[in-house]
Amino acid sequence: MAGNTFGKLFKVTSFGESHGHSIGIVIEGCPAGLEIDLPFIQSELDRRRPGQSEITTSRNEADKVEIISGVFNSLTTGTPICLLIKNKDYKSEDYDHLKDNYRPSHADFVYDSKYGHRDHRGGGRSSARETATRVAAGAIAKLYLRSYNINIHAGVTQVGTIKVPGKENKFDWSVCETNAVRCPDSNYAEKMSALILETKKAGNSLGGIISCEIKNCPPGIGEPVFDKLHADLAKAMISINAVKGFEIGSGFSAASMKGSEHNDLFQNENDSITTKTNNSGGIQGGISNGMPIYFNVAFKPTATIMKDQSSVDKAGKEIMLESKGRHDPCVVPRAVPIVEAMAALVLTDHLLRSKTNKI
Amino acid sequence: MAGNTFGKLFKVTSFGESHGHSIGIVIEGCPAGLEIDLPFIQSELDRRRPGQSEITTSRNEADKVEIISGVFNSLTTGTPICLLIKNKDYKSEDYDHLKDNYRPSHADFVYDSKYGHRDHRGGGRSSARETATRVAAGAIAKLYLRSYNINIHAGVTQVGTIKVPGKENKFDWSVCETNAVRCPDSNYAEKMSALILETKKAGNSLGGIISCEIKNCPPGIGEPVFDKLHADLAKAMISINAVKGFEIGSGFSAASMKGSEHNDLFQNENDSITTKTNNSGGIQGGISNGMPIYFNVAFKPTATIMKDQSSVDKAGKEIMLESKGRHDPCVVPRAVPIVEAMAALVLTDHLLRSKTNKI
Amino acid sequence: MAGNTFGKLFKVTSFGESHGHSIGIVIEGCPAGLEIDLPFIQSELDRRRPGQSEITTSRNEADKVEIISGVFNSLTTGTPICLLIKNKDYKSEDYDHLKDNYRPSHADFVYDSKYGHRDHRGGGRSSARETATRVAAGAIAKLYLRSYNINIHAGVTQVGTIKVPGKENKFDWSVCETNAVRCPDSNYAEKMSALILETKKAGNSLGGIISCEIKNCPPGIGEPVFDKLHADLAKAMISINAVKGFEIGSGFSAASMKGSEHNDLFQNENDSITTKTNNSGGIQGGISNGMPIYFNVAFKPTATIMKDQSSVDKAGKEIMLESKGRHDPCVVPRAVPIVEAMAALVLTDHLLRSKTNKI
Amino acid sequence: MAGNTFGKLFKVTSFGESHGHSIGIVIEGCPAGLEIDLPFIQSELDRRRPGQSEITTSRNEADKVEIISGVFNSLTTGTPICLLIKNKDYKSEDYDHLKDNYRPSHADFVYDSKYGHRDHRGGGRSSARETATRVAAGAIAKLYLRSYNINIHAGVTQVGTIKVPGKENKFDWSVCETNAVRCPDSNYAEKMSALILETKKAGNSLGGIISCEIKNCPPGIGEPVFDKLHADLAKAMISINAVKGFEIGSGFSAASMKGSEHNDLFQNENDSITTKTNNSGGIQGGISNGMPIYFNVAFKPTATIMKDQSSVDKAGKEIMLESKGRHDPCVVPRAVPIVEAMAALVLTDHLLRSKTNKI
Repeated sequence: MAGNTFGKLFKVTSFGESHGHSIGIVIEGCPAGLEIDLPFIQSELDRRRPGQSEITTSRNEADKVEIISGVFNSLTTGTPICLLIKNKDYKSEDYDHLKDNYRPSHADFVYDSKYGHRDHRGGGRSSARETATRVAAGAIAKLYLRSYNINIHAGVTQVGTIKVPGKENKFDWSVCETNAVRCPDSNYAEKMSALILETKKAGNSLGGIISCEIKNCPPGIGEPVFDKLHADLAKAMISINAVKGFEIGSGFSAASMKGSEHNDLFQNENDSITTKTNNSGGIQGGISNGMPIYFNVAFKPTATIMKDQSSVDKAGKEIMLESKGRHDPCVVPRAVPIVEAMAALVLTDHLLRSKTNKI
Repeated sequence: MAGNTFGKLFKVTSFGESHGHSIGIVIEGCPAGLEIDLPFIQSELDRRRPGQSEITTSRNEADKVEIISGVFNSLTTGTPICLLIKNKDYKSEDYDHLKDNYRPSHADFVYDSKYGHRDHRGGGRSSARETATRVAAGAIAKLYLRSYNINIHAGVTQVGTIKVPGKENKFDWSVCETNAVRCPDSNYAEKMSALILETKKAGNSLGGIISCEIKNCPPGIGEPVFDKLHADLAKAMISINAVKGFEIGSGFSAASMKGSEHNDLFQNENDSITTKTNNSGGIQGGISNGMPIYFNVAFKPTATIMKDQSSVDKAGKEIMLESKGRHDPCVVPRAVPIVEAMAALVLTDHLLRSKTNKI
Repeated sequence: MAGNTFGKLFKVTSFGESHGHSIGIVIEGCPAGLEIDLPFIQSELDRRRPGQSEITTSRNEADKVEIISGVFNSLTTGTPICLLIKNKDYKSEDYDHLKDNYRPSHADFVYDSKYGHRDHRGGGRSSARETATRVAAGAIAKLYLRSYNINIHAGVTQVGTIKVPGKENKFDWSVCETNAVRCPDSNYAEKMSALILETKKAGNSLGGIISCEIKNCPPGIGEPVFDKLHADLAKAMISINAVKGFEIGSGFSAASMKGSEHNDLFQNENDSITTKTNNSGGIQGGISNGMPIYFNVAFKPTATIMKDQSSVDKAGKEIMLESKGRHDPCVVPRAVPIVEAMAALVLTDHLLRSKTNKI
Repeated sequence: MAGNTFGKLFKVTSFGESHGHSIGIVIEGCPAGLEIDLPFIQSELDRRRPGQSEITTSRNEADKVEIISGVFNSLTTGTPICLLIKNKDYKSEDYDHLKDNYRPSHADFVYDSKYGHRDHRGGGRSSARETATRVAAGAIAKLYLRSYNINIHAGVTQVGTIKVPGKENKFDWSVCETNAVRCPDSNYAEKMSALILETKKAGNSLGGIISCEIKNCPPGIGEPVFDKLHADLAKAMISINAVKGFEIGSGFSAASMKGSEHNDLFQNENDSITTKTNNSGGIQGGISNGMPIYFNVAFKPTATIMKDQSSVDKAGKEIMLESKGRHDPCVVPRAVPIVEAMAALVLTDHLLRSKTNKI
């Protein structure tokens, strides 16, 4: 049983390979009557698209999105929305030498193990190119969330060993779109940028951390006991290429805290129930409590590096792999809109799910 | 839309409240012909049951499991397996004062927000008591995994600030069941135990980390692009009460590594393709590669502490909450079998899902 | 992948075998705050229970239903509702001779083919005893539908060759519960009753037809293009033991009608849009149009008859099967509440699904 | 929650409107390694396409199918297969007068009720044009079923009052593709053809019945208790536009039969267990028994007729509707490949589902 569908009520099914005809996504369950702002969808894709700055890959895709169905007179009709993005600037010949060879820490070997054969061109389905469709669908989810005044902001808070100090929920997200790294702190953005360029020159790559905050989520969203809101956020984030970890609220630091420090005491603030601290990260028992939701996502360094590496081929023979192709020296700047998109998909799905909680 | 079902092919639906008649779980999709070892299932529940040692809660539940359906002559029949565990030693009167008051960092407030009312006795459905049913179902999954020789071991590698040094995949798991903390290192187990007792005496609580390793998972398990094996593991773990973080393989440390350090180079080891390092944690592109799968799960300190805390009541009035009831000063020792059970559910589900990957 | 779950938002998972410990069902997604009328649920089960009259089987089960979870202070809590019914009056020894033999037109052979072995006692999971759990869950769905003033009535309109004349939607359903056959016409009820008793005496069995009408369903319920309201009704009905056919509105007679006869012309009736005829059976394009929904369900004659029949055993050897055990000479009188229950499950599920159709 | 997805393991999600950019379908879960015969897929679409003979609509669509993803070197890769069919010969202006008016027995009114607005051009999403995508996906399912030697044949056995006599499972299906009506009997085909043309001339329309037979389905396919094989077939068929009824095996005639006539006695035929009769229609207890599966599907007459009809507009005002546009006087000839396609989707899905029935 395949796994290309995400969400239950706001359900997306993605398709397409890196060097195939197109990539695309079908959204089922978007309520009818939502106004579709196509330029906004495109602007979200532009934030993710390759070739946008000197610190990203040089593959140049316009990533022009086309609406195939489900929208009439700029309004959603309640029928499935198909979004299509053509593949254009691919150089499949760059991948000819990989047909029978396995790149380290890529999915080449496991796809062959699983399916018996694979589309080796540009990583085929395992390429992060697929995430463009998530951003497109996520943009429609964001349009829906606007009507709730819910907004989602992510930014890069660590690149390699450079880490912006401070609590995740105290960042100024508006700074992110003013620098190529998408860091909420301009000074750190410069340092990160310099490190990325230096690492690129050395033919190496970097990992990093993206932090995300969701504001104005009303209390009551999330479905115990398995589909807890943070459990679905975790799945959404870990499903993004290159992600190795997820933590919500206090996260891993909670392990070394005491209950008396960690507990978020309730208070009455202007006739609204809030908590004095927010170690819970806005979610308790799997359900939003009205406080900001915030979490961190850890990314590994890009697997493609400009260094020769030992590996094996399909027959199991040990080989030396030459490095070719275009890639990002660090994926996190372009992954910011992906993190936001996945968060938007989770929130929208759970908001719709909550509509039938009570009589 | 509710969220009490987990898994697609090996699908469990859990039900029951902390102080209700019983808790239980229905397993759908367990292949017919699996031999059911009831004492083994019971022994797994015994590892989780309250009152098992001085470092756990004193609520004393036998947690005797009963098979209601789906098994005939000790073999599964392919029909749904219902497992039932009666609630016995509950003291609902301990919770009378909580009917209209919200405990800090518990799910009282959000359940009321979501559902309009709640069963306040012992936390109702939000109680970790529900996880007993996961352990019962997970035990059946483990029986299935035995036929693949897949084994799953978890242990406590951090309690409060005491952390066992060393890589997650180098632990001697057999040590875990020899100490009450379930730590893979006896010396650290003693230190942890002492800390837990001391903290309990002080009326406070502790968090911790559980590490888990899955051995002998064949390559090819996991379903891109959303139902990646580690994405489903993440969801499974984060869905456990009190969990705040999940990381696989290199995890959060990947953020500060370089590609040349992080990449796992393939090699041919005795005619089998393996990797020289295992930063991937046994999963690449969301699919198992045959190497050990290992991950860490971070738990927050128990929310119930023996200290008075400020809070609010249902009407929003600020109140002072007295602490009552029985609880674990640190949940991780009892959470070890829960982590294993959820991992077993994910693995079994994905093994079954992989049966139709190829012609 | 097993198939014991029905519905998407109001989702039921049934479990249990004819001669096992209990049968039961878990309802997920019932909105919180619904008042549970336990005597009503029991009364629905009483309509289905064996031994209720001389024209039904003599197996005598009280079919006492117990609520295990999900209800607190008589209100649903939004958490899973588990309903349990103990098996009591079973005579497994009546089935010993069937362990290795296949009864004609029963599921013995196919269960062995599918699962490798089977619980042969009373038909195990394939027994219509399982439908008691559907009636229990359907009763809760009916309680939910009450708040919409939607009511569902079914009755027996054919037994063997005796057929009540007249259009399906013109029956007086209140008559049904006044006779043992559950026929909406008292005169025909007597004829049917006599035929059933006579057939029983002859050791034979009869089929029949149940008609069902749903009143006050609002327009807009049903989900194109696959989950059309009548498509889900069809699946629900055909999934009932012994059912061979389903038709909605004009049904099979539509095949020989002309468009000009069949089209239901819209009119404005007291400021409400209705149709002059109702060949559509209340559903157009898979969506309710506000007119009464009505359909027919065809049942085959009971497979168990009091006559020796030729058959084969597990090894394929041809044998002569003696007839034993207790059974209904005609299942339709007891199937009336099952048809209603399944209709109630479909309607409730689709009503909840419709909550997110529009912004 | 929308309903544009069908199947669990071989899962299709359809999208697109009659007069939009394209219609399409995404197939998830097709096993990797299946050889894709594109001309065969196209030939199946040609059997359904409009304008193929004088008894069908004159809308002329090439219905050229394009594979967007999931196939590499003519083999499926295990990743989602997206199939796209462009809309070309549409005349949206023919529908301008329907923007605010409701056609009798069409879905105009209910779409407005459900979604608040609708794409009125050519019926939008409610148009039977959507079924082209089912045929395309069904063709791939047929390619999969070929490896099991399972074949599916449907044909028209009734048009208006003209009915081919004889049992459904005794037809010569090879005759169907030799006449425009797709009737398994050439003489009746001529009579039907004449009736269709005559009715067309009179501006009226006809209903009919399609019979279908599935040969060589192995025993053991189908998932009790809800996802019985015939329950899923029923849902699949009733989900097709204009369908009003479904019956399997003996169908509605079973209602008037006795158990002794209806029971299918097992026998040993050349070391294989078969039944002497096949009133079960190849399915018992929801599971295939190895005998041919056969069923009938009843279609209503086309709702569009060339006669003026009274109706109402969006505001509820009574109006007189002029008839315009192109349509089929009888849909059953073109619906034959749709019935086969839906049957193929059900069978493929259930074959895959059966892979995990046993250890």
